Amino acid sequence: MPAYKAPIRDIQFVMHEMFDAEKNYQNFPEYADQLTRDVLDQYLEATADFCENELAPLNQSGDQEGCHLDQGVVTTPQGFKAAHQKYAELGFTSLTADSAYGGQGLPTSLRIALSEMLYEANWAWSMYQGLSHGAMRTLEHHGTAQQKQQFLPKLIAGTWMGTMCLTESHAGSDLGLIRTKAEPQADGSYAITGEKIFISAGEHDLAENIVHIVLARLPNAPTGTKGISLFIVPKFNVDESGNIQDRNHVVCSALEHKMGIHGNATCVMNFDEAKGFLIGPENRGLNCMFTFMNTARIGTAVQGVSASQMAFQGALDYAKDRLAMRALDGAKYPEKNADPIIVHPAVRSMLMTQKAFAEGGRALVYFLAQHADIVEHSDDLQAKQFSDELLAFLTPIAKAFLTETGNESAKHGVQIFGGHGFIVEHGMEQIARDARISSLYEGTTEIQSLDLLARKVLKSEGKLLKNMTDLIEQFITENQSSAILKPYVDQLSQLKTEWLDITQHIAKKAKNNPEEIGAASVDYLYYSSYVVFAYLWARMAKIAQQKLDDGSTEHKFYQAKLKTAQFFYNKLLNRTQQHLASIKTGAETVMALDAEDFAF
Amino acid sequence: MPAYKAPIRDIQFVMHEMFDAEKNYQNFPEYADQLTRDVLDQYLEATADFCENELAPLNQSGDQEGCHLDQGVVTTPQGFKAAHQKYAELGFTSLTADSAYGGQGLPTSLRIALSEMLYEANWAWSMYQGLSHGAMRTLEHHGTAQQKQQFLPKLIAGTWMGTMCLTESHAGSDLGLIRTKAEPQADGSYAITGEKIFISAGEHDLAENIVHIVLARLPNAPTGTKGISLFIVPKFNVDESGNIQDRNHVVCSALEHKMGIHGNATCVMNFDEAKGFLIGPENRGLNCMFTFMNTARIGTAVQGVSASQMAFQGALDYAKDRLAMRALDGAKYPEKNADPIIVHPAVRSMLMTQKAFAEGGRALVYFLAQHADIVEHSDDLQAKQFSDELLAFLTPIAKAFLTETGNESAKHGVQIFGGHGFIVEHGMEQIARDARISSLYEGTTEIQSLDLLARKVLKSEGKLLKNMTDLIEQFITENQSSAILKPYVDQLSQLKTEWLDITQHIAKKAKNNPEEIGAASVDYLYYSSYVVFAYLWARMAKIAQQKLDDGSTEHKFYQAKLKTAQFFYNKLLNRTQQHLASIKTGAETVMALDAEDFAF
Repeated sequence: MPAYKAPIRDIQFVMHEMFDAEKNYQNFPEYADQLTRDVLDQYLEATADFCENELAPLNQSGDQEGCHLDQGVVTTPQGFKAAHQKYAELGFTSLTADSAYGGQGLPTSLRIALSEMLYEANWAWSMYQGLSHGAMRTLEHHGTAQQKQQFLPKLIAGTWMGTMCLTESHAGSDLGLIRTKAEPQADGSYAITGEKIFISAGEHDLAENIVHIVLARLPNAPTGTKGISLFIVPKFNVDESGNIQDRNHVVCSALEHKMGIHGNATCVMNFDEAKGFLIGPENRGLNCMFTFMNTARIGTAVQGVSASQMAFQGALDYAKDRLAMRALDGAKYPEKNADPIIVHPAVRSMLMTQKAFAEGGRALVYFLAQHADIVEHSDDLQAKQFSDELLAFLTPIAKAFLTETGNESAKHGVQIFGGHGFIVEHGMEQIARDARISSLYEGTTEIQSLDLLARKVLKSEGKLLKNMTDLIEQFITENQSSAILKPYVDQLSQLKTEWLDITQHIAKKAKNNPEEIGAASVDYLYYSSYVVFAYLWARMAKIAQQKLDDGSTEHKFYQAKLKTAQFFYNKLLNRTQQHLASIKTGAETVMALDAEDFAF
Repeated sequence: MPAYKAPIRDIQFVMHEMFDAEKNYQNFPEYADQLTRDVLDQYLEATADFCENELAPLNQSGDQEGCHLDQGVVTTPQGFKAAHQKYAELGFTSLTADSAYGGQGLPTSLRIALSEMLYEANWAWSMYQGLSHGAMRTLEHHGTAQQKQQFLPKLIAGTWMGTMCLTESHAGSDLGLIRTKAEPQADGSYAITGEKIFISAGEHDLAENIVHIVLARLPNAPTGTKGISLFIVPKFNVDESGNIQDRNHVVCSALEHKMGIHGNATCVMNFDEAKGFLIGPENRGLNCMFTFMNTARIGTAVQGVSASQMAFQGALDYAKDRLAMRALDGAKYPEKNADPIIVHPAVRSMLMTQKAFAEGGRALVYFLAQHADIVEHSDDLQAKQFSDELLAFLTPIAKAFLTETGNESAKHGVQIFGGHGFIVEHGMEQIARDARISSLYEGTTEIQSLDLLARKVLKSEGKLLKNMTDLIEQFITENQSSAILKPYVDQLSQLKTEWLDITQHIAKKAKNNPEEIGAASVDYLYYSSYVVFAYLWARMAKIAQQKLDDGSTEHKFYQAKLKTAQFFYNKLLNRTQQHLASIKTGAETVMALDAEDFAF
């Protein structure tokens, strides 16, 4: 397995050249002059250093060793605990946390930017941090002052960690079905009883205490999603000053055996009258969780980029090194026994595809992250609303598309290695196994698709879509006189019209038959995603061209961006046509068979 | 994990109703009246019984236990050896083998038909048989009478098994690079020295002896593919009467750790002056191997069908059982907490896709198998040549497309299970891991694509393609007056023209730039495959419609075939347009980047 190398230059391209992070942060008084380009680069380099030297060496060994459960005690793979301690010491656990409780209060977008490298270097390890971050965020948003004082300082310091307990065996995508109960107690606490499954980081040895954020039902709560409340359930009870007391009645009863992310403990958690505390209003637990869920979805989108990047990185090294056959137009390296396989068009196509997905995905993630900053920090209500809407629209796209393309890139990574890709030692199959979870958890691709088309696009009567097409229109208007950008502008122009038309088409059909929405949704998500990528790749091409026109010394770097944009437009963007055609054929053949007639 | 159920009815549809196996066998004197429909059904049922009751129960345990190596001795998972003994006792090892040496001499097509169930029930176990069959076939085709007498009877009886030793660490797709040496000895044997990797079933405990068929170079052999010879190297030396003697110097030095097919021993084999015997002419080893390779490719295509079928079967059961949310047009099962997920269009789309791939793939495999029979048994030279050419044309399509669609189906299978799909116990992730190898071994998808476009289509100046388009044209002519088949006929008509046009287009561009072939090849293979599927689905639709018109009592079964055909035409066939568009944009953006400029 090749050593991990953080893609710093590409991250900088997006952060500085495409989204001008420094200038963006200057818009918010709390960051003015603090987050200069130099400072941001220092964060990038510190993270890259930690990822390359501490995390990446534990990636393959963590996969092979996995986690162990012995009488409720979970041991993580060798080195995981020490890496967590170092991570906390370096201040990474406190990055974006509330400064009133020991956090550094840095912007979400910076955290997102850095997290890509974490998931590249060690996906399973980094999930412990992702979950803990989610618990902290939930406490910050919905906890009382008392609860924050009790739990946040140690979570932020990394001495304790947190996690989220949502899923039950019969309730995954449909959380309305959960059954875990919360009985009010005389002291104002609640006795939580039930079984949760798929609890990532539910139990482990990285921290002194684990703070569970748990969905449960109060007695006589309404059925379905409107009767779910949110609770804090610590592994060890905690006194008012935040000191650890006795063991609470929450235990890990089993570890799941999984396809991948073996280094992360996926726990079955048993709550047996465990002491819990209500967080947020009664029966509004799911609403409180939405903050977490949206952040988690962006986090998962980042994982998709990480998978594309890792698969690209591994496959590129191999493709330059491995010799097989000669180029079709004659030997390129006649001094060798055979040419390196990167000369073969089919291999190059896969590498270019991975590259286009990794770099396009990174741009999409930063695009989202910057709007997340605006929502959190801007005083401009109009800007805030626009960003909020854009975020709502783009989140399912980013979550579903970047994880699916991450999976596709991982598949290409294995494929470029040929038979060697199937062998554990080369590390490519681990990327494929780890990446597979990302299209399943935090809402499957199908759930995201329905969210996009039904809740975001159709429910807003197209308003959320129009925000996006207006941005595309703006790009078209600004660049239509450019001869060099013409191919991009022409295609965007056509796609924009087509996108609005197909949306109208679906809306119309859905009036008579709501199943048309479900039948169109996945194709619609893919279609939309390719168009969003086309917009971002056009912007990247424009920047690269400007840099070349300005006589940049990084001629090859910007040429590579331009050529990758052209590859995306030539070879990948036409996938829209398949999805468009599929949407047009409607729901009929999808719904035609009775459930009993699928097999005989 | 759901119990395996052999898809007998669907196999019968293809075998009897679509390809009329009984009638086909009557064309060959050796099978006349022997292989009636009843007899064929008995073979199907016996195999189904063995697969459901002996093999399937070992599938998950075999994956979890894997193979063990201790000082050169490989132990297969519990139950594997007993299953092999039973398989041999039931006469399955001798099915198609030469009757002069104890075989039953049954046709290849029957073996192919039955093997689908083997790979469904237990892929890793069935590979031992596949490899042994390959070795037997090679001996039958290229061995001397003496060699056959020495090795075949015990191989056919299953007392011994065989395998194929081709790959070396630096030589996979490009076998011209192999280095294993064969030094002639005074007694007429050869001393074979070298290291082979990825040797499936290279060492194991199922049989008393293992007969290796090995590629190696004679002293002063020409470099490249024209200097490779083929040798028989038994694990235990064998006297002239076929009795086991001393241990030969061939040992397994390591087992590969793999993504899947854990129950199959993938060995590094060391030959240290091992005693070997030349088989076939000197330096013609690769030519001798082509017989094996083509059979192996069809065998791998079958594995792709098996993956689609298994993923479909598992996911269908789950989709009928698992409850989540309500149908978009209102509760379908109001008495339940939620509707089973099969009501949701996105889930149905995945199931229908799996079904269309499994059943379409099965039809393609039988189509090939029937032509393989003609090549082997027909006296009609013209028919023989046509079948040979069609087989040459369709083999890369079947190998690449059925394994890729097998992988896609496996992905959908995991996806339909949601988070549960990632969990080992449900068995869906095993299907995905096992299936992954099929697009890598026996020639990657990229190698198959190049074989199809460069060697089969362009080198024959389109003749091999025209054989296929003539069949399509024939279907169009025969059915153009049918109102019911019109949608199929119209689309086939358009696709046929398009296919010939795009081939011309590539041929023209390739004259100036051979790289255009490589750049187009994978898209061309997919394009061609969807058209071949369209032809086969149209034929299936026609049969189903006829049965319905004839008042069949299996109304629902034939309706399901029709609806699946319609789904394929509506939802999957439009993927051709993406590949067509991609081909048209040519090689330029694929070849644009220098190898050093892919990353900075």
